[in-house]
Amino acid sequence: MELTVYLAGQIHDSWRDDVKEKASQKDLPLHFVGPQEQHDRSDSVGEDILGEQPNPVYRDDAASSINNLRTQVLMQKSDVVIALFGDKYKQWNTAMDASTALTMGKPVILVRPESLHHPLKELSNKANVTVETIDQALDVISYIFE
Amino acid sequence: MELTVYLAGQIHDSWRDDVKEKASQKDLPLHFVGPQEQHDRSDSVGEDILGEQPNPVYRDDAASSINNLRTQVLMQKSDVVIALFGDKYKQWNTAMDASTALTMGKPVILVRPESLHHPLKELSNKANVTVETIDQALDVISYIFE
Amino acid sequence: MELTVYLAGQIHDSWRDDVKEKASQKDLPLHFVGPQEQHDRSDSVGEDILGEQPNPVYRDDAASSINNLRTQVLMQKSDVVIALFGDKYKQWNTAMDASTALTMGKPVILVRPESLHHPLKELSNKANVTVETIDQALDVISYIFE
Amino acid sequence: MELTVYLAGQIHDSWRDDVKEKASQKDLPLHFVGPQEQHDRSDSVGEDILGEQPNPVYRDDAASSINNLRTQVLMQKSDVVIALFGDKYKQWNTAMDASTALTMGKPVILVRPESLHHPLKELSNKANVTVETIDQALDVISYIFE
Amino acid sequence: MELTVYLAGQIHDSWRDDVKEKASQKDLPLHFVGPQEQHDRSDSVGEDILGEQPNPVYRDDAASSINNLRTQVLMQKSDVVIALFGDKYKQWNTAMDASTALTMGKPVILVRPESLHHPLKELSNKANVTVETIDQALDVISYIFE
Amino acid sequence: MELTVYLAGQIHDSWRDDVKEKASQKDLPLHFVGPQEQHDRSDSVGEDILGEQPNPVYRDDAASSINNLRTQVLMQKSDVVIALFGDKYKQWNTAMDASTALTMGKPVILVRPESLHHPLKELSNKANVTVETIDQALDVISYIFE
Amino acid sequence: MELTVYLAGQIHDSWRDDVKEKASQKDLPLHFVGPQEQHDRSDSVGEDILGEQPNPVYRDDAASSINNLRTQVLMQKSDVVIALFGDKYKQWNTAMDASTALTMGKPVILVRPESLHHPLKELSNKANVTVETIDQALDVISYIFE
Amino acid sequence: MELTVYLAGQIHDSWRDDVKEKASQKDLPLHFVGPQEQHDRSDSVGEDILGEQPNPVYRDDAASSINNLRTQVLMQKSDVVIALFGDKYKQWNTAMDASTALTMGKPVILVRPESLHHPLKELSNKANVTVETIDQALDVISYIFE
Repeated sequence: MELTVYLAGQIHDSWRDDVKEKASQKDLPLHFVGPQEQHDRSDSVGEDILGEQPNPVYRDDAASSINNLRTQVLMQKSDVVIALFGDKYKQWNTAMDASTALTMGKPVILVRPESLHHPLKELSNKANVTVETIDQALDVISYIFE
Repeated sequence: MELTVYLAGQIHDSWRDDVKEKASQKDLPLHFVGPQEQHDRSDSVGEDILGEQPNPVYRDDAASSINNLRTQVLMQKSDVVIALFGDKYKQWNTAMDASTALTMGKPVILVRPESLHHPLKELSNKANVTVETIDQALDVISYIFE
Repeated sequence: MELTVYLAGQIHDSWRDDVKEKASQKDLPLHFVGPQEQHDRSDSVGEDILGEQPNPVYRDDAASSINNLRTQVLMQKSDVVIALFGDKYKQWNTAMDASTALTMGKPVILVRPESLHHPLKELSNKANVTVETIDQALDVISYIFE
Repeated sequence: MELTVYLAGQIHDSWRDDVKEKASQKDLPLHFVGPQEQHDRSDSVGEDILGEQPNPVYRDDAASSINNLRTQVLMQKSDVVIALFGDKYKQWNTAMDASTALTMGKPVILVRPESLHHPLKELSNKANVTVETIDQALDVISYIFE
Repeated sequence: MELTVYLAGQIHDSWRDDVKEKASQKDLPLHFVGPQEQHDRSDSVGEDILGEQPNPVYRDDAASSINNLRTQVLMQKSDVVIALFGDKYKQWNTAMDASTALTMGKPVILVRPESLHHPLKELSNKANVTVETIDQALDVISYIFE
Repeated sequence: MELTVYLAGQIHDSWRDDVKEKASQKDLPLHFVGPQEQHDRSDSVGEDILGEQPNPVYRDDAASSINNLRTQVLMQKSDVVIALFGDKYKQWNTAMDASTALTMGKPVILVRPESLHHPLKELSNKANVTVETIDQALDVISYIFE
Repeated sequence: MELTVYLAGQIHDSWRDDVKEKASQKDLPLHFVGPQEQHDRSDSVGEDILGEQPNPVYRDDAASSINNLRTQVLMQKSDVVIALFGDKYKQWNTAMDASTALTMGKPVILVRPESLHHPLKELSNKANVTVETIDQALDVISYIFE
Repeated sequence: MELTVYLAGQIHDSWRDDVKEKASQKDLPLHFVGPQEQHDRSDSVGEDILGEQPNPVYRDDAASSINNLRTQVLMQKSDVVIALFGDKYKQWNTAMDASTALTMGKPVILVRPESLHHPLKELSNKANVTVETIDQALDVISYIFE
């Protein structure tokens, strides 16, 4: 039994590579999916495909429509969602993706530093499990296979 | 036909009173619900009801379990959701509530200053309508009754 | 028992008044809802509320986001949908609304002149009942109360 | 990960072959499904299987019942829907299929010439992404695999 | 708290009047709905509204489309379904209505003489409660209010 | 693409073998499932597994609980349902299975002799397609693969 | 806004009267529903309505079919569920009702003495809020109206 | 066709090995999943992954959050659930898992000694089949493949 894991969270650094490498070291039968990780491409994909838009708001809207389609397809294929929060960026997409998954009945593991507990307390309470590190998130997923 | 409107967003100022007063001026047949607006009560309700918790994380978890129950009851009663974002606070609850509503099939009006468009672009694209002011949000709801 | 009926279809003439008057003559306990019937307002509502948009496509998109919110709220309140097709206009909205209703499990009465049967044949086959006149549509609804 | 794509739209020319060839050139792992593309067979299938019907309306109804069964089976198997509109034909089936898919939670890419934006504005607003060409539609799907 | 009860079953005699009278004697706060009870009207309603059809099969199909719309509207309004089987008639509609209700999550009370247990055994096992008389069915519903 | 087809209907003769043989002759990629076809086993399975029951009604109830579990598992795996009615037997299970499938959103092909149209008219109207022979049912399924 | 509250739990003492009286003292706009509270009647209702059964297992099965119908009707009407566990009785019905409510998306408040936390830990974690007393449960519901 | 079977029930002895061995002897194409069977690990997994918790209640809550995530993932993958009750332990998790499965539309086989029928009567009535031994449960599943 292989599980598909959606990795929700910011796309400004390579934390997903860390997840994938650690999962590989543990030999977990996981298939990872997630948002576009090239930040520039994620921002420009609307204009890349649809052509120049009249202003930055419409440039953003064009990009987000394509990012949302990608997320919808891949999240519907997922068995579990890991949603990572850090101390930088607004991360409203991460909250949106975690909440969408929970409302769809997909189990969610929330990863956040303890310092962020207060502003994330309602989302943390709704998530299945809240952890502080990627290692802990993979320990939780690993437990499914014990 | 009366509509029930859930007002998602920060609870640090009295923006909901502004919404209610303007709706009243327009004589709109609306019934408003939303989260606990007394910020201190919202933070302490867990310990107020369940007694002292061993540390701040558990104090928060106790409060959030009760806040989430309240939101679940009231959002299930709602016909439309207005979700307001401003330039202060993390507002991950607002993103969570808006996303829950959208996934449940509840129409959502997003209110945000244009300056926040970029970090909210995916949520804005999923919302039914994105506006910049409370007046515009009420204009949208008013349009349902025209 | 009162039923709420959504009247889907073109907004270029006053066919909905005809429906309402005939329902009133038959003393049927019906509450009618539907799209904005002022065509100009329906087209301009985006700019009326959100301000001028950069081009006609965005003007249209702004208006349609508000029209779609209205339809979503009112169709969720409805027990039955009457969808009327005539020989003028593209009427893609009518097909969209009828299909949305059917997929949501709302019963749909399709009204169309027989001359349109061929291009509407798949939608007609999915609709609960297909009739040719408004009188027949009301006869069908009247039958629920016999 | 292979995706199944339903190609909704008119069946009077071979645009689906164009989609398939371009997808093949891009080496995208896609499996395409869609309606019967032989227009005559699509119209006659009711009588072909069920025998002669008493008049053209019933001939159409017989055919559409079988076309609708086919669409229901194949759309339930699909991960994404591409719905193409052109400047010919009524295309109410295309609007019906796109709307069914959206209501079922299937992501939809709408392809239409800009000239059709106004009559399609509400459907375009509900679709995940609206583009003008098949190449753009495939660029959007290709982006899922980046 | 008033409950709406759908009375599924044959329409060849006045068993529904018996149900209503007994419910009235027990002062139960029930609102009863059900199919058209005038058998002739139920068979002719298609041609009554849509005009003469080319043959008996199409006459039947026209009538059943309108009967099904009625049932769909009223069953969606119901809290409980009573489905009565007797030793006459095919009663496939009764089996269809009971099964639709069960699949929609509506509680179903099956009323049948013990002599019919064998051919109804699978439906009886899926129903919430199986009884032999109308009095027993009303005793079950009465129990909800104790 | 292989499709799983549930064959609902009486189990007193070997009509399912006929379906399977004809599907095999047409080289259709179908996997068939259905109820227990050994009539005696279907009636005795309750007592075979659970031991002797106190009377025929309980004997039947025990058997039907196991038959219903089987049907639930296999119908949830199915893409299409063929429901065959003939002029013998009560066939309430067939009506129940067809109606369950339709309510779950599974496409249904109804097979019945024209002589049975009147008592089956409401179920026929809800089914996707109504045919008279097994060959026609397989022609409909075959059409999905054209 | 009035809320309907289902009171799940043992029926061997009058704890529900305590809940109702305290809610009344707080002037909360609540309507309470729940299982049959007369224990003897709850056990005998099957034979009371359906007549003598062949053995205690079938006596129990007859009663439970009617108790389950009652619970299904009333829980579908509820906005919130309070599920109370004590240190006596098996209370598998309470666990069943709480779990049914949670899976249906109904908010659940679990009331249990701290001594029972270990065996209830998974259910407690799934419940929205876990408290130790009826007063606390009503405090949680009261908070919805603040 | 392989089926996935979730084995709900206590984790204090090796009854699942018995199920698996007997299924293997019968050559049934089954894939078994279930909760963590190492009781100590099941109790300590919260602290094993998340670190020491402030008291036993929080230790339990941490463990149960991870156990619940495991169950949610695996039950969503299952086609059938076997829920075993014995005369030891509270077994509220077993009641919770069986009820969750039933509400999700998963068929459930309840295994319990006859001595437990009375306290399990409502759950037994909701389950698809109730048996007394593991052999009988496998006979029921084996019947699906006959």
